[in-house]
Amino acid sequence: MEQRGENFRTIWLKPDDPTIVQIIDQRLLPHEYRVHNLRCWQDGLIAISDMYVRGAPLIGATAAWSLYLAALSGTDSAIAVREAAKALLKSRPTAVNLRWAIDRILRLVEQAGTDAVLADVILADAQAICDEDIEISRGIGTHGVALLEAIARKKSGGTVNVLTHCNAGSLATINWGTATAPIYFAQQRGIDVHVWVDETRPRNQGSQLTAWELAANNVPHTLIVDNAGGHLMQHGQVDIVITGTDRTTRCGDVANKIGTYLKALAAHDNAIPFYVALPSTTIDWKSRDGVKEIPIEQRDPAEVRDVYGLCDDKPAHVSTTAASTPISNFAFDVTPARLVTGLITERGICDASEAGLLSLFPEMATS
Amino acid sequence: MEQRGENFRTIWLKPDDPTIVQIIDQRLLPHEYRVHNLRCWQDGLIAISDMYVRGAPLIGATAAWSLYLAALSGTDSAIAVREAAKALLKSRPTAVNLRWAIDRILRLVEQAGTDAVLADVILADAQAICDEDIEISRGIGTHGVALLEAIARKKSGGTVNVLTHCNAGSLATINWGTATAPIYFAQQRGIDVHVWVDETRPRNQGSQLTAWELAANNVPHTLIVDNAGGHLMQHGQVDIVITGTDRTTRCGDVANKIGTYLKALAAHDNAIPFYVALPSTTIDWKSRDGVKEIPIEQRDPAEVRDVYGLCDDKPAHVSTTAASTPISNFAFDVTPARLVTGLITERGICDASEAGLLSLFPEMATS
Repeated sequence: MEQRGENFRTIWLKPDDPTIVQIIDQRLLPHEYRVHNLRCWQDGLIAISDMYVRGAPLIGATAAWSLYLAALSGTDSAIAVREAAKALLKSRPTAVNLRWAIDRILRLVEQAGTDAVLADVILADAQAICDEDIEISRGIGTHGVALLEAIARKKSGGTVNVLTHCNAGSLATINWGTATAPIYFAQQRGIDVHVWVDETRPRNQGSQLTAWELAANNVPHTLIVDNAGGHLMQHGQVDIVITGTDRTTRCGDVANKIGTYLKALAAHDNAIPFYVALPSTTIDWKSRDGVKEIPIEQRDPAEVRDVYGLCDDKPAHVSTTAASTPISNFAFDVTPARLVTGLITERGICDASEAGLLSLFPEMATS
Repeated sequence: MEQRGENFRTIWLKPDDPTIVQIIDQRLLPHEYRVHNLRCWQDGLIAISDMYVRGAPLIGATAAWSLYLAALSGTDSAIAVREAAKALLKSRPTAVNLRWAIDRILRLVEQAGTDAVLADVILADAQAICDEDIEISRGIGTHGVALLEAIARKKSGGTVNVLTHCNAGSLATINWGTATAPIYFAQQRGIDVHVWVDETRPRNQGSQLTAWELAANNVPHTLIVDNAGGHLMQHGQVDIVITGTDRTTRCGDVANKIGTYLKALAAHDNAIPFYVALPSTTIDWKSRDGVKEIPIEQRDPAEVRDVYGLCDDKPAHVSTTAASTPISNFAFDVTPARLVTGLITERGICDASEAGLLSLFPEMATS
C-alpha cells in the first residue's frame, strides 16, 4: 500500500494500553477517519453487528480480538470467553470466517491451562490470525495479478478495466484486501489498471470505502451506480470482474454482497471473466448448494432509507423515503458456481467447483 | 387512481391563466409536493433537462406544451416554435417520444395558417397528446392486467408479486402510467397484488416516485435496493417483472433506466416473465439493434454523488462520496429483445420482435 504503507492495519492493540483494541470506525469514511476503542468484548460485538467493521476476514479477526477482551474480563476467563463466543456467533449470520475464528480460539481455550495464561494465549492467536490474513491476501494478490497481466498483454499494455462490487479491499481484511490485492500488485508491477467501483447500496461500501482506499493508494478508479455494470460490459468497458465473498460453498457457490449475482449474470452474458477472491477461511466445506443452504442476513430497513454523507460540509444522514414506505433489506445474495469463472485463493486459482477447490485443498477431501 | 382520482394529471394549463403551464416538481417528492409554473418554453426545457418531469410520455407532453408557450412568445410564432423545437430536441437524447411530440407539433406549424391561430392550434394538440396518452395507458392497463389475472388464477388467488424498476407510473405519463397501469387495474379488479419497488439509483425514482404513487393509491409495496431483485427471484418472491421503456427498437430491444438489463438477465435466469409496457409512441421504427444504435445519455456526476432526502425533517442533499471521487453516470441501458418475454402496448401484447410489433402495428411494415 503505497500511501498507507506496509504497516497499514484495520485492527490493532493500542500501543500504550494492551487492554484496548483499536479499529477504524468505517461507518464514517470517507468523510471522517476516526479510530474507535474496543474496551470489552461487547464493544467488539457492536462493532461487528453495527458494521464499524465489515468484510468477512476482518469480521473474523474482530471476533478473535473480542474474545481476547473477554478473557481479560470476569473472574473466570474461560467462562467469559465461551459466553462472548456464543453472542458473537450470532452477530453476522452469513460470514463464515466469524465461526472459523471463534472455533479456532475456543479450541485454544480447551487446550489452555490456567486462567492467568488464557488472555495471553488468545492475544497471540488473534495477532497470528491477523498476520496470517495478511499473508493470505498477499497470496491472493500474487496469484490474481497473473490474470491482470495476461489481459494487459492481450491489450498490448492498454488499460485493464476491473469491475468490483462492495469493498473486498484492505478495509475488509487486515491489509491488501482480497479482490483488491491483485489490483494493488498489478499497480506495483506497472500495469495500467483502472477500477469501476460499484456504489454498493444499501451501505455504499463501494462509494465510501473502496473509492477511499483506491484513492489513498493512487489507483485510478471511477464510481458507478450498481445499475451501470451491465451497460459497461455490453460496451467493452470491463475486462474482468473481481469480487470478494462472505462464504463460498464446497461446490463453488458464492455468497457475497447483495447484487453480486446480477453482475455475474451480466459478465456471463457478455463473456467477461468473473472471478471471486477469497481466503480459504471463507470456504464453508459443509455446504454445497449456496442458494438453498446459506442463510442470508436481513438487516435494518434504516440502512436502505438513510444515506450517509456531507450536508453543508458536516457529516449527516438523509432519510430518502417517505417515513411510511415499507422496506426489505437483504444483505447478501448467492452467485451459483456456473457463473463464476474461477476462484482466486491464497494457494492458487481454481475452478468454482468441488473438484477445483479440492485440487488446491486436498486435505479437505474427507471433511 | 383511487386516492388521486380519474382527474389526476401530471401536466395541465393553469385554470385562471392560459399563458402558464403547470407541472409537479418531481425532484422534491416524496418530501414535498410543489406545483411548478412554466411561463416560457425555456422553463419547459429546464423542466425536462433538469428532470422536474421525466418518463418518456411526460417528456413528450412537456415538449408539446413548451412549444405552445413558444408560440405565445415573440413576434413570429412559427419562428419561435421552430427555434424552441431545436433546443428541446437536444434536452434528453434517449427518449424517443420527445422527437415524436415535437415532430407532430412541427407538422401542425407547417399546415397552420396565420400566426394568430398557431398558439391555439398547438394548445389543442398538446391537450390532445395528453388525452391520447391517458387512453394509451388505459389500453396498456386493459391488456396487461390479463397477465396478472392469469398469475392470480395459477396461485389460486395468492399474492401476485410484481417487480418494477424506476418509475413508469402515472408520474411518468399523464395518468395511470405504463408499467403501473396493469397493477392499478388489477387492484381495481380485486387481485391481491404486491409490488417490489427498485430504489433506482442514481435518482431514486423508485423510492421517491413509485413508492409515493403506489402509497397514494393504496397498492401494497416494498422498497428494495436495485441489487436485491436477483435474490428475490432466486427465492420465488417475484412472479413477473414489468418495466417501462424510453425507446424500443423495431426489433424489440428496449432502452430503459440503467439497471433494467440486469433485472432482465435475472428474470431470464430464473424463468420469470419479463414484460415491458409501452405506448407505441416509444417505438423507434427506424432503429433495429438497440445496443449499437440507441444513444445513451450521460448525465451530471452530481446525480450519483448527491442524494436527496430529509435531514432533521428538512429537505436536503448529502454528498455521499469524497469530493475528489471520479464518477460516471449513464442514465439508460439496453435490454436485448431475447430477454424480453413480451411487450404490452395499447393495442395488445406481442413478442419483442419485428414480427411481433408488426402484428400489432401492420401500418409500419413499409416504414
